[in-house]
Amino acid sequence: MSASEPTKLPTPSACVADFCIIPIGTPTASVSNEVAQVQRLLKQTGVKYSMHSAGTTLEGTWDEVMHIIGQCHSLLHANGVVRIQSDIRVGSRTDKKQGFEDKVAKVEKLLAGDQG
Amino acid sequence: MSASEPTKLPTPSACVADFCIIPIGTPTASVSNEVAQVQRLLKQTGVKYSMHSAGTTLEGTWDEVMHIIGQCHSLLHANGVVRIQSDIRVGSRTDKKQGFEDKVAKVEKLLAGDQG
Amino acid sequence: MSASEPTKLPTPSACVADFCIIPIGTPTASVSNEVAQVQRLLKQTGVKYSMHSAGTTLEGTWDEVMHIIGQCHSLLHANGVVRIQSDIRVGSRTDKKQGFEDKVAKVEKLLAGDQG
Amino acid sequence: MSASEPTKLPTPSACVADFCIIPIGTPTASVSNEVAQVQRLLKQTGVKYSMHSAGTTLEGTWDEVMHIIGQCHSLLHANGVVRIQSDIRVGSRTDKKQGFEDKVAKVEKLLAGDQG
Repeated sequence: MSASEPTKLPTPSACVADFCIIPIGTPTASVSNEVAQVQRLLKQTGVKYSMHSAGTTLEGTWDEVMHIIGQCHSLLHANGVVRIQSDIRVGSRTDKKQGFEDKVAKVEKLLAGDQG
Repeated sequence: MSASEPTKLPTPSACVADFCIIPIGTPTASVSNEVAQVQRLLKQTGVKYSMHSAGTTLEGTWDEVMHIIGQCHSLLHANGVVRIQSDIRVGSRTDKKQGFEDKVAKVEKLLAGDQG
Repeated sequence: MSASEPTKLPTPSACVADFCIIPIGTPTASVSNEVAQVQRLLKQTGVKYSMHSAGTTLEGTWDEVMHIIGQCHSLLHANGVVRIQSDIRVGSRTDKKQGFEDKVAKVEKLLAGDQG
Repeated sequence: MSASEPTKLPTPSACVADFCIIPIGTPTASVSNEVAQVQRLLKQTGVKYSMHSAGTTLEGTWDEVMHIIGQCHSLLHANGVVRIQSDIRVGSRTDKKQGFEDKVAKVEKLLAGDQG
């Protein structure tokens, strides 16, 4: 990977992204219908993902992950939501492969060592 | 709650916050030690919280929640991290009480209805 | 600052926070009225702040900054918004004092060195 | 745009994204060198962007914007940063075209009406 021509750089081959999608200008304060639509789409894509109360985490290549999150926006737009805002936390690293489940496991192992 | 004197408004009596804390300028790319320290502090506070791979969610009054996240910064500073950045997603609502577990349950109920 | 009793730790004495506030369940997709209300409140508090297209940055003690962002939520609630979600990026550091204007100035100085 | 085959949906044709990029495991707490590298890359891409103290805002198609942010990660990786975390706030809307400069202008117009 060369930094001499940065505009030709590829995007990262692996990343973990966590996103929280918010519909704006919807009739009610509930967002569960929209979140359920997103979950159904994620399931259909075959990507590895996990929902929690503050968002959904997925992993894959940068392009794949960002493409899917973009499709989530498009899906809600197609279903009538005129404005959507997402917060995405995305991480990439070159020192090792680490999926989102590994991250939790590592911390839990440290905490388990506290006992005894 | 009056908006006529906004600078005297109280903060919300309930909120759900999800935060991802990142130490900057540490010797290694691993953050699991710092995350474990944060989890130990959260446990000691008695606040309701849940860790996932992209952060930790907690609920309580606005002041309580923000005070605890600030203490997490101070704890890492006290343990030698000179710079810390957090991303916090925080929500408050006045239409009903909703804890972070309720949010997931509601979406899962919708998704469960897909089958059968 | 001692980490031996973490639940008694004070919050950081200085921080820079950038927040983006989103009203949920409002009749229109526009959020400019809500953002304007927030700006008026910030002005009244006397805190140092700066609005940009993706949020508003403010600086002060941790408690002060978080109290004001909480009041922004309460103000919108008082004005009829039943649900509000904010994304807050907050940083604290112990190695030096740095306001939000200093951060931009430092990068611009580096970029200015590119010319000539 | 049809939602009947969501996995074939295109990504949004326009979006505004604001990102804050954080190098992890670097020798110092300063991030200004990394931010400057990102700004140079953005300039070379020709995308419309604006730096502020808490991030950089850019606008374009979803694919273009996310590709460029991914290249920013790759650039820092190429320059030796082994782990990078970004927070991205991204919005899309179908009711009208709105660039990031329009958003600030609209709020400032509302605030200007306060005087006189």
